[in-house]
Amino acid sequence: MPVGTLASVKGTANETLEQLNAQIILANTYHLYLRPGTEQISKLGGLHRFMSWDGALLTDSGGFQVFSLNDLRKVTEEGVSFRSHLDGSSLFLSPESATEAQIAFGADIIMAFDECTEYPADTDRARRSMEMTLRWAKRSRDYFEAHKQEVPWAQAVGGPQQVELRASRPQPRAGRPRSHDAEATQALFGIVQGGMHPELRKESAERTVEIGFDGYAIGGLSVGEEKRVMMEVIKEVAPQMPADKPRYLMGVGTPEDLIEAVARGVDMFDCVLPTRNGRNGQAFTSRGKLNIKNARYTTDQMPLDEACNCSVCRRHSRAYIRHLYQSGEMLASILLTHHNLAFFLDTMKRVRQAIRSDQFAQFRREYTEQLNSGLEA
Amino acid sequence: MPVGTLASVKGTANETLEQLNAQIILANTYHLYLRPGTEQISKLGGLHRFMSWDGALLTDSGGFQVFSLNDLRKVTEEGVSFRSHLDGSSLFLSPESATEAQIAFGADIIMAFDECTEYPADTDRARRSMEMTLRWAKRSRDYFEAHKQEVPWAQAVGGPQQVELRASRPQPRAGRPRSHDAEATQALFGIVQGGMHPELRKESAERTVEIGFDGYAIGGLSVGEEKRVMMEVIKEVAPQMPADKPRYLMGVGTPEDLIEAVARGVDMFDCVLPTRNGRNGQAFTSRGKLNIKNARYTTDQMPLDEACNCSVCRRHSRAYIRHLYQSGEMLASILLTHHNLAFFLDTMKRVRQAIRSDQFAQFRREYTEQLNSGLEA
Repeated sequence: MPVGTLASVKGTANETLEQLNAQIILANTYHLYLRPGTEQISKLGGLHRFMSWDGALLTDSGGFQVFSLNDLRKVTEEGVSFRSHLDGSSLFLSPESATEAQIAFGADIIMAFDECTEYPADTDRARRSMEMTLRWAKRSRDYFEAHKQEVPWAQAVGGPQQVELRASRPQPRAGRPRSHDAEATQALFGIVQGGMHPELRKESAERTVEIGFDGYAIGGLSVGEEKRVMMEVIKEVAPQMPADKPRYLMGVGTPEDLIEAVARGVDMFDCVLPTRNGRNGQAFTSRGKLNIKNARYTTDQMPLDEACNCSVCRRHSRAYIRHLYQSGEMLASILLTHHNLAFFLDTMKRVRQAIRSDQFAQFRREYTEQLNSGLEA
Repeated sequence: MPVGTLASVKGTANETLEQLNAQIILANTYHLYLRPGTEQISKLGGLHRFMSWDGALLTDSGGFQVFSLNDLRKVTEEGVSFRSHLDGSSLFLSPESATEAQIAFGADIIMAFDECTEYPADTDRARRSMEMTLRWAKRSRDYFEAHKQEVPWAQAVGGPQQVELRASRPQPRAGRPRSHDAEATQALFGIVQGGMHPELRKESAERTVEIGFDGYAIGGLSVGEEKRVMMEVIKEVAPQMPADKPRYLMGVGTPEDLIEAVARGVDMFDCVLPTRNGRNGQAFTSRGKLNIKNARYTTDQMPLDEACNCSVCRRHSRAYIRHLYQSGEMLASILLTHHNLAFFLDTMKRVRQAIRSDQFAQFRREYTEQLNSGLEA
């Protein structure tokens, strides 16, 4: 899933995402809760309509950002008090309010509110954090069951808000309606925590499954641990998660991480790498990373990735994109982001094809060998 | 002409320009001369190939930027010494070197090197400046005649540079070849100066025509004078320029400026307004300017311009674009720039249609009335 933090995949028009066959994108509850706010998105018909995106959407619960962006947060059993990173105002998120916001946004998949356990955390601390995440998961689930009918598309059918909007202003032309069955509800995913402790991860998975969700995520990884440790945790926990429900590894990762996590049983990912690194001048290619700032590309007429068929690689040379980057032209970020998203989405498409044709092991070996052949070595 | 200062119309992919039927774009010799430099663009096959743009291109001569970006410039009969605004290095542009650079870039239309007379300038000063621009026009013309065969596409056929490139590296896939007849040369335009003095403008036009160019531009306007004065000069000078050659008003202007200058005989324009103002949150609409920062648009579900059929207006609401702008999302600039370019190009398309059907007077009245109906009044 490309990451569209503030209801926009940075530097990328929806048309580009459609051209790349992005089936689902992620938006961040924490950021949207702050700006433009739950009420406004709800008023405007929900997130799909607000950003005019007809594909699927997933919102996280805000838990991760509360932990990563707020040094002054205060965690209690009730929820988390924190200060806005924008204006310092006091805010509060709980399983109930995070779920309420996500129902108002109306993404297709929403996440239970969890505590992202810090790294490192000893067994005691990781257990206490895991236990709270489990209690919060139950509260998220209960709130969702009681309020799941309050999605924007149900409102749109007969809700007072929408009627008022229609009466008070010209029928809007912009923003395509989202074609949801008015009876449909969102899918709620639970999140497995437990730090880097295999036995806690196993327990967290079992007890999260007991509460019962439409899909399950692995949270609390890629928080500073070694890659080896992360892969070990994934290997332990993925098999504990139901095989007939999506398994989602949150906030990961590099192309090699995707392949290795798939090999251990993961189905879904989100990560800012293709967009953020693109803006910082880095292209992901079939032969490893390419840093467009590198002087060797000054007169290089090859595309970013010879093996890539995206419209950027069909049209533009490394020399041109390097010139744009060095000159501070916005188009450098646009083109690098576009290519990186194409590369990540193509990787996952090839993963799916390889699995379907029972050739994943071979694909994994070849893909990894090529990645390590070292374009810049 | 949308302005692509550094071989990129800021925030705009070539595909978007093609979708908007932009037939020609402008690039700035001064900026490209500094970065990435004449030699590199030449090595990479010229500007069309470097930026992978199959449409027409115009480069200015660098004269205007030398005057507007360099307080420490020193003008002599030979040319202009100045310091790079990037690193302070000493540089020199003359009619010969500016024309040499423009031949190396290989745009379809190139401009004679002129002195943009500062405003205000008394008659003496304006005459001295005009006389020098006339001498420089002759030198630009002479250099062009002696070197016009040195265009990149002639090089590509049998030039040593290109052969070497082909031998030393894999055949490039990126960058589409520009389909120029190898015998074709560029069009060189002369520039009329003379400050705000009608008699000097008239003389400058006559004597520039005597030198003989493929088209004629009005330079030295929109430099601080009142709009009324600018229109008076255009009214005086345009009829002095050949009716069977393009008349190009440089660096102008607002939608109303375009209509009023066309009414006085102008054919071509370039301006950074649609792109620069777009990045600053301003949309041009059929009912005047719209400042997306304005709080009134917070929940406004209308498109930027109800009368516009561009893909931004078909898809996105003012509320969404305002949210992107307020959140510092790059997509705000991308979408506003896209719409503004669509609006300017559509205005000129409608101008051409009105002239062809002999209804320009009516079009001018209606267009202007609507513009002044004041969306934000």
